[in-house]
Amino acid sequence: KIYNMSKMNVSETGSDLKCLTSWVEMDESSDFSIDNIPFGVCSFPGTTNARPRCCTRLGDTVIDLSTLSEAGLFDVIDHLDSPTYTFSRDTLNNFMTHPKQVWADVRMRIIELLVSPTSCNALTPDARLRTNLPLQKTAFHDVSSENENIQVQMNLPASIQDYTDFYSSREHATNVGTMFRDPANALNPNWTRLPVGYHGRSSSIFVSGHEVTRPCGQLQINPTDASEGSNYGPSRLLDFELEVAFFVGGKPNPHGERLTMERSSERIFGFVLMNDWSARDIQKFEYVPLGPFGSKNFATTISPWIITTMALEKYKCATSYEIQEPIPLEYLQDKDYSSYDIELEIAIMGENMKEPVKVSKSNLRNLYWNAKQQ
Amino acid sequence: KIYNMSKMNVSETGSDLKCLTSWVEMDESSDFSIDNIPFGVCSFPGTTNARPRCCTRLGDTVIDLSTLSEAGLFDVIDHLDSPTYTFSRDTLNNFMTHPKQVWADVRMRIIELLVSPTSCNALTPDARLRTNLPLQKTAFHDVSSENENIQVQMNLPASIQDYTDFYSSREHATNVGTMFRDPANALNPNWTRLPVGYHGRSSSIFVSGHEVTRPCGQLQINPTDASEGSNYGPSRLLDFELEVAFFVGGKPNPHGERLTMERSSERIFGFVLMNDWSARDIQKFEYVPLGPFGSKNFATTISPWIITTMALEKYKCATSYEIQEPIPLEYLQDKDYSSYDIELEIAIMGENMKEPVKVSKSNLRNLYWNAKQQ
Repeated sequence: KIYNMSKMNVSETGSDLKCLTSWVEMDESSDFSIDNIPFGVCSFPGTTNARPRCCTRLGDTVIDLSTLSEAGLFDVIDHLDSPTYTFSRDTLNNFMTHPKQVWADVRMRIIELLVSPTSCNALTPDARLRTNLPLQKTAFHDVSSENENIQVQMNLPASIQDYTDFYSSREHATNVGTMFRDPANALNPNWTRLPVGYHGRSSSIFVSGHEVTRPCGQLQINPTDASEGSNYGPSRLLDFELEVAFFVGGKPNPHGERLTMERSSERIFGFVLMNDWSARDIQKFEYVPLGPFGSKNFATTISPWIITTMALEKYKCATSYEIQEPIPLEYLQDKDYSSYDIELEIAIMGENMKEPVKVSKSNLRNLYWNAKQQ
Repeated sequence: KIYNMSKMNVSETGSDLKCLTSWVEMDESSDFSIDNIPFGVCSFPGTTNARPRCCTRLGDTVIDLSTLSEAGLFDVIDHLDSPTYTFSRDTLNNFMTHPKQVWADVRMRIIELLVSPTSCNALTPDARLRTNLPLQKTAFHDVSSENENIQVQMNLPASIQDYTDFYSSREHATNVGTMFRDPANALNPNWTRLPVGYHGRSSSIFVSGHEVTRPCGQLQINPTDASEGSNYGPSRLLDFELEVAFFVGGKPNPHGERLTMERSSERIFGFVLMNDWSARDIQKFEYVPLGPFGSKNFATTISPWIITTMALEKYKCATSYEIQEPIPLEYLQDKDYSSYDIELEIAIMGENMKEPVKVSKSNLRNLYWNAKQQ
């Protein structure tokens, strides 16, 4: 057993909402602040709310959006025809197919409902949830570590049809290229010209914490000579990578219609942490010439709360590269070539270890190809 | 515009059902004979049946299974709890998640309803559809070329989450290897030891006949030197392959549980023709080291009717290889290493051509890795 703990810290770098406070009790240091408003899918086993539904979270309080919508609190949102239909579903897919304006309106509406009446911001607080204690009792679920009575089960936030894993860290690609080839030609010629990627198996995407079974497969007998063949057995080189994934929302693109770089930012709903689990020994034998397959099929884990691009907007920053060199071809040029200042770290804890050991840290701004280009 | 016409002919090689005839009028030479009973999803634009539903077909008659199930004709099937629910859906996914016995029972039930009372077989005909003219009027749709009033729209038969494209023709892999490397080492060492495959993009799978838009992408400037970079533009080397695809049904495999070779045949629901559209020039520049991506993302087309493994059983035969050499590792050994005797051919017709030109013919038995091993 390996416990894998990835963490995403967003460091406050100024926001027009930063003076907001909520009337809901919460720890000020929580990542789930009132200007975060993540989206996820929860169920509450053993209660009458056992069916998964859409939720958000503030501090240690998970807030059931289906209950709020049944109470009519989202009826003011334009173009979200039936909020109850949308939020009582067991995935966020329906919500995510709405245009970005609807995502933004829902987020602001949740903030209006949760903000203190004395908050310094120009926002107009709405008292309908604050003054309705029975509604709070139904919709709020305390997940603080002290409250062991309440079980909240986090589910996969969306039904994922296709998923693509891009190879967007220049340093990572250079390291791998150095190992497999030589340092002078570490990057393949295509790498700096397009975001190289492959499709993964969406049926093996699980929420973080899912117990991953060590895969079996064909392991090359002689590490330097594939022609000596392979044996079947459990992977001995199991590995996971620290990645950040994003969900594409909006109306599906009609077949044959290209999405321009300008319009791509309207379509990115939000981000999660991702661990791409890999069996490196299985990968070594199988991957020529069609890419990784069984070595990556057994598990991909993502964090359950989607942090929206609206919430991340205030952490927007230049990438570590500032400019791309060579300049990408026109269709891939991002006039607003930027990323987000999000510290990332990854730690592991083996079965016999007392505490997790941090094995790597980075920042989302260190990726060469940004989400829009991917 | 290129019209692509793939065809699958199943040559009669003996069957216990071969003496069956139907009371429904049909051309004896039709591929949709009474022992075929394919499954598909149709809609009938401009009628009150405009919503897609599950169908089968006999000769030129498309038969609406949702209407038959509403009339109670499938109530005798065990373990298909609600046939109306199953067949009124807009995909076959629900039906396909049932066990193989249910697929077989539904098929035999349809044959009982359609078989002539004078048929020579031991099957007991059921007169309930034959004697109910109003039900026939609702459920039957004549799609013969003479009847231009009836429009039947064929839809994608299933909602496809993951799809994998295997590289299972030894001759094809040898040809490609000879072109890219040298004839003496045409096959990579892994090729004869495992079915090499990659995931495709399921959102670009369409029913045959869908108009495919020529994709744009990065084309390598110097064909022999990738380091000279690429230009963006429409693919000039658009290509499609003649392939056969199959649908995996049954209860989803729990994560971490392996499907044995013995159990794999219970899970293969049926086969369709497939064209894997490829932009070879885009593929050339992009595919190192993670495999094909944008070059295969724009379209994959499949035929609308799924021919079940039950219907194909009588065409079962040895593969062209008879045995696999080297012997696969134990987990991949198929004691019943076999295929189906299905003639395959592919023709194209350019916009200025008067008739299609056959460009290739083969037989499903020529694949080295069979469906169970894939």
